[in-house]
Amino acid sequence: MPTPFTADGWPIATCLHGVPTTASSGEPLHEASDEEWSKALRLVASVGFGVAELADSHARIGDMSPSRLLELKAVFAENGIIAPSVHVQRKSVIEPGKGEENLAYAHRTIDAAAAWGMEVVSTGLHQPFTAAQRRALWFWTEPGPRDPDDPEIWALAVSRLRQLGRHAADVGLELSLEMYEDTYLGSADDAVRLVEAIDLPNVGLNPDIGNLVRLHRPIEDWRLAYAKTLPYANYWHIKNYNRDEAAGLTTSTPSTLEQGIINYRQVISDAVSGGYRGIFLMEHYGGDSLGVCATNREYVRDVLAHAVAEVNRAEAQASAAH
Amino acid sequence: MPTPFTADGWPIATCLHGVPTTASSGEPLHEASDEEWSKALRLVASVGFGVAELADSHARIGDMSPSRLLELKAVFAENGIIAPSVHVQRKSVIEPGKGEENLAYAHRTIDAAAAWGMEVVSTGLHQPFTAAQRRALWFWTEPGPRDPDDPEIWALAVSRLRQLGRHAADVGLELSLEMYEDTYLGSADDAVRLVEAIDLPNVGLNPDIGNLVRLHRPIEDWRLAYAKTLPYANYWHIKNYNRDEAAGLTTSTPSTLEQGIINYRQVISDAVSGGYRGIFLMEHYGGDSLGVCATNREYVRDVLAHAVAEVNRAEAQASAAH
Amino acid sequence: MPTPFTADGWPIATCLHGVPTTASSGEPLHEASDEEWSKALRLVASVGFGVAELADSHARIGDMSPSRLLELKAVFAENGIIAPSVHVQRKSVIEPGKGEENLAYAHRTIDAAAAWGMEVVSTGLHQPFTAAQRRALWFWTEPGPRDPDDPEIWALAVSRLRQLGRHAADVGLELSLEMYEDTYLGSADDAVRLVEAIDLPNVGLNPDIGNLVRLHRPIEDWRLAYAKTLPYANYWHIKNYNRDEAAGLTTSTPSTLEQGIINYRQVISDAVSGGYRGIFLMEHYGGDSLGVCATNREYVRDVLAHAVAEVNRAEAQASAAH
Repeated sequence: MPTPFTADGWPIATCLHGVPTTASSGEPLHEASDEEWSKALRLVASVGFGVAELADSHARIGDMSPSRLLELKAVFAENGIIAPSVHVQRKSVIEPGKGEENLAYAHRTIDAAAAWGMEVVSTGLHQPFTAAQRRALWFWTEPGPRDPDDPEIWALAVSRLRQLGRHAADVGLELSLEMYEDTYLGSADDAVRLVEAIDLPNVGLNPDIGNLVRLHRPIEDWRLAYAKTLPYANYWHIKNYNRDEAAGLTTSTPSTLEQGIINYRQVISDAVSGGYRGIFLMEHYGGDSLGVCATNREYVRDVLAHAVAEVNRAEAQASAAH
Repeated sequence: MPTPFTADGWPIATCLHGVPTTASSGEPLHEASDEEWSKALRLVASVGFGVAELADSHARIGDMSPSRLLELKAVFAENGIIAPSVHVQRKSVIEPGKGEENLAYAHRTIDAAAAWGMEVVSTGLHQPFTAAQRRALWFWTEPGPRDPDDPEIWALAVSRLRQLGRHAADVGLELSLEMYEDTYLGSADDAVRLVEAIDLPNVGLNPDIGNLVRLHRPIEDWRLAYAKTLPYANYWHIKNYNRDEAAGLTTSTPSTLEQGIINYRQVISDAVSGGYRGIFLMEHYGGDSLGVCATNREYVRDVLAHAVAEVNRAEAQASAAH
Repeated sequence: MPTPFTADGWPIATCLHGVPTTASSGEPLHEASDEEWSKALRLVASVGFGVAELADSHARIGDMSPSRLLELKAVFAENGIIAPSVHVQRKSVIEPGKGEENLAYAHRTIDAAAAWGMEVVSTGLHQPFTAAQRRALWFWTEPGPRDPDDPEIWALAVSRLRQLGRHAADVGLELSLEMYEDTYLGSADDAVRLVEAIDLPNVGLNPDIGNLVRLHRPIEDWRLAYAKTLPYANYWHIKNYNRDEAAGLTTSTPSTLEQGIINYRQVISDAVSGGYRGIFLMEHYGGDSLGVCATNREYVRDVLAHAVAEVNRAEAQASAAH
């Protein structure tokens, strides 16, 4: 963070859900030309973003040659976009039958992120969608894979994530673990238990409580969930949802940060006053993801201005008291 | 209202739902230090509000000493916030077993509001939440207490509210009665009947139809409800909801004024052309109440500009015709 | 379209759902005085619109005398509003027992639109609401009339619409057919089949997929529906909805373009790069239709800026390659 501490330069990044994973040429964006990538990045820049999270839905940097990696970084730079973080999606290191393969891929991704000059590698324990999830309008309305109630598998998760964390530390990166239902990171208590067991200073949580409040089942109170997990946060996927519950029935739909059930004005203020200094990652599913992420970026910028002013005020008072 | 009549100075106030009722020190805000109050009021000012309704969830001015009251008013002034109205919440003067106590409290609040220099005391007949309401995601999805179908209790409500109205008149205040389901102010017809029975020029309605359109049951048409009640309005809690009804099932979620089912562009225009000159009180439940109230304030300001221009045009034409 | 091709002048029109169909004098707006019309049009202008679709819910230009028609057009001009399109609502040319009457009315409307100097006549095969639809909070939650699975009636629809298309061509107008559930324009495939059978260069589709994604039943994927129908589009009602589906239950509520399930940033870009150069018609049901349409206009303007820049860039590259 710069000194004096301000909200202006704080990195507020977008997810790439709003960018098609298939180029207009028909090939996966991962394999597409610089021209196709420039087109994708112009779209990102057109809504005012200069910071993006590179998810492996769009580019698997762990599977790229070193030269291609730097070429792609240069294309980002040409289009005015920096990518300080990579997100490894649905590649659980304890996915049955694929854990070791996913672990090796995560290691390669850490090396690639370091070569790129990133700051954060984000991942989690969620697994690929079931067929029912792929058919659903919203995948979260169908149950997905569930981590087993098995201490040995849990210990394996701790051990492999600690291994990734050490690797990340060796190359100067943070490792952030995303909260996601029905995994060992599926509740505030479980997430804290896991990250405490890993017990490394550069391994923290991505308290994506938005993943939980959209579920069509009883949910934790988001206030408590954030209070428990924010002290461990080192990266943050932020999204919000409208939600109704009555007569045993739940509905939820994606919303802007301002309009959904989580009070991000309060939560972001609490995070900043509690010491959070990480990236804010705007995430949104459905419809115009990029547009809503841009709307949310302005919202977070506005909320941060007051939160930072309050921290600066408190510090000035503390200084004056000495 | 200033002359010439303009929209610019019209008071558009925020509720305090977005301000925690507990200070960061852990004590109730009601008892908190000026420093804690300043922090709360800086939050209100940070979203651009200079006018707020002081609800007794945050400060029970009727229970404050005269000196503390003026100190608190000074803290508001230091932070650029005026409070022209107080809202007495869930203290029905006919609550079984507590009616007289609540009545005495309302009298004390009227005196305190006068001492503060307020304009409006707002209250209603709704009672404290049931346990099921407190557990619910949204309290309005569970039934609350219901005023009895008993002419004597109804007459008692009229008599006690008239008594409060006379007291308010004596000290130069308006008394406004909030519409709320299952009370004697629970429908447009019932609300009009009650306020006509009270029959005092300074006692009017707070036509908070938002309280009604969110209910998970068949509802009055908001157009008719406003048409019937706006002529009696002297204060106005404004909020809106998304709502769906189909196959016997209702869902509703809080929305911005612009996006919900009530057409506030039309209703506010109708109110102004019908003579409403009172305060607009932005109310919003759920998530970032303050942020949505600020968004709604800009919306109301914009709608008012056209509504006022139309009134001024009509008056200019009427003058020219003479 | 002007050269060089820009987004700035692209007509983005509003529907009139936000303008009461009854004048304040109590008479239908269709019969109301110029003064009443001016008041209605000032409301439209107050939210920043200079372009509106004249729907026959508000004025049946096909039933107006030539002199009244030009008077009304002058009132529009005085208030800064142009009307490049007329929408004939719920007057199906195959409505049982009323088809010929509706056909004659459509012919008169085409003549009136030409006399006005419009560009597009929009209509469809949907019929008047059922009683249940009129009672519903949202009419689309109840089934409406359904075009029969009868090749002769289908051929009659083709023949009559082709007749209208030829008439429109004779007077220099486009005819656009709105997609609407349970009609011969009720799915992407059906709509394409109908317009291909009509087979006239000035007859195209109004791909109002918003009509379909709000239905409380299984729906087509909007991506596929737009991919199939955009090549035939010559006019475009645009609106969006929040939607949830789970456990056999659907809910939907009107949303802004940015917030609903259809990604209009993507769809508008695809349309423009595929050659769409027609009017964008902002449509919104419920609440403050005009306000949401104005919000959506700014959104479309912003999305168009990038879409047009991309088309211009591609054309510049193609030119440079020669």
